Amino acid sequence: MDLKSYLKDMQELVDKYLDKYLPDTSELPRSIHESMRYSVFAGGKRVRPILLLAACEAVGGEIRTAMPAACAMEMIHTYSLIHDDLPAMDNDDFRRGKPTNHKVFGEACAILAGDALLTEAFILLSNPDLSKGIPPATLLEVIHEIGVCAGSRGMIGGQVVDMESEGRKEIDLATVQYIHTHKTGALIKAALKCGALIGGGDAGMVNAVTRYGEAVGLAFQIADDILDIEGTTEQIGKDAGSDQARGKATYPAVMGLAESKRRASELVDVAIEALAGFGEKADPLREIAYYIVKRKS
Amino acid sequence: MDLKSYLKDMQELVDKYLDKYLPDTSELPRSIHESMRYSVFAGGKRVRPILLLAACEAVGGEIRTAMPAACAMEMIHTYSLIHDDLPAMDNDDFRRGKPTNHKVFGEACAILAGDALLTEAFILLSNPDLSKGIPPATLLEVIHEIGVCAGSRGMIGGQVVDMESEGRKEIDLATVQYIHTHKTGALIKAALKCGALIGGGDAGMVNAVTRYGEAVGLAFQIADDILDIEGTTEQIGKDAGSDQARGKATYPAVMGLAESKRRASELVDVAIEALAGFGEKADPLREIAYYIVKRKS
Repeated sequence: MDLKSYLKDMQELVDKYLDKYLPDTSELPRSIHESMRYSVFAGGKRVRPILLLAACEAVGGEIRTAMPAACAMEMIHTYSLIHDDLPAMDNDDFRRGKPTNHKVFGEACAILAGDALLTEAFILLSNPDLSKGIPPATLLEVIHEIGVCAGSRGMIGGQVVDMESEGRKEIDLATVQYIHTHKTGALIKAALKCGALIGGGDAGMVNAVTRYGEAVGLAFQIADDILDIEGTTEQIGKDAGSDQARGKATYPAVMGLAESKRRASELVDVAIEALAGFGEKADPLREIAYYIVKRKS
Repeated sequence: MDLKSYLKDMQELVDKYLDKYLPDTSELPRSIHESMRYSVFAGGKRVRPILLLAACEAVGGEIRTAMPAACAMEMIHTYSLIHDDLPAMDNDDFRRGKPTNHKVFGEACAILAGDALLTEAFILLSNPDLSKGIPPATLLEVIHEIGVCAGSRGMIGGQVVDMESEGRKEIDLATVQYIHTHKTGALIKAALKCGALIGGGDAGMVNAVTRYGEAVGLAFQIADDILDIEGTTEQIGKDAGSDQARGKATYPAVMGLAESKRRASELVDVAIEALAGFGEKADPLREIAYYIVKRKS
């Protein structure tokens, strides 16, 4: 299969639905809806939605059914970026080469736009008009899984520990692992599991896809850490080497670059292995796993 | 009935369940869970949870079934207060006589604690172990209603317009009404409607209780505006007259004190009228409506 055109098609599809699902800028209050849309359409790769849709496909489901959940994942991811960029947090002026939300709309509006995107994700997930093909009990399981993975025991917990660790001299592997599996890994795992649930996979399939998600989520973050060192500023859309400059807890900082690369490729093997029982419908998931460690941006 | 002891009993019950449902401070990362609990247990009156439970009772439901939704409402209310108090927003150092969350835990932690409480509300609402008595489709309707009322077209929208109006010389009644029906009214309406849904009320009952909620929600906010002028600093736990000093959009500012009082008491009549078809199980809702315009704190 041609992964590049698969990713492009999926990204365009997700963008189309995000545009459809997000409140229009003509709706009052306009400022908040402009601010929400600004960050959602600031050039994301749609990794989480695409993984969710690919997981749905892998278990034999119809991707249209999973579109609200896929877009909800991207809304949660975007809210987390808006809040992470705030002056009180990472204080970033640029993200993907564009001014961050608070630089354009002000801090107060950025805080509220993040809050609103998080809320909108749950509005979308529970929208009765968009979830006709999904049994209500399954949809509740999806909402619960996404909540847990986004909350204080998941993504937010990872961000807390990341902040608390910043600039510390000695950071151990356990801490880096906690940060990665929570801050990025949890939401990616949720994307995979929820795609499989919505696609109607049986318990064995859902477990296999979830294992894939855990491995790929961690590999993705290690690859990100490596890119921060090896990529150019142009490729990664932010200052290269910025993690190091900030004393961020990263894999290369703890175990070196070579060992980090070995670990990332080992995790890709684990992910592929988890899909052993799946046919060619899981090919997109397989290709994405290989791509994650090879990407340049 | 003795409203005072009813409110006290309900408040204690809600506090007990909030304590049970919130992540323990022994759970990692500890700082975020301490911060979440700090604000939840900073002395709220539990108005929204009590209204939700009373609505559930009014339609013949069992209040224990509605406990997760009641506590979820309080988590959402608390998150909104934490974020409203931030330096970039209202910049308040005290709330209910205690230092605000960011004064104790720092701004970054306060932003994340708010995010985590909002997320926790949806985790709680979709928890399969706590919702056995509620049909999944009803629970999805509850989640959707709470999301819509808390989001950019509800509570957050009200906060946006409130901020944008602050300090403006001429604020019209339509703007004040928009702010009040959205910023406070939406969540109160949601509490009533969701209590009735969880309690198993039929469509007519749910509509009647929702109409009560709309009237009481607005009356509650007008009463709050009046209290800000007539109450002492000790009674209301913040500086008396602070709305006026900030040029906040309030009812008394637009239509005067006497007319605001008349309007609040008219809304209480509308609320009582909406419950005309209900028996004595709706007495707590009736008593609460009368109490709202008479309260001193």
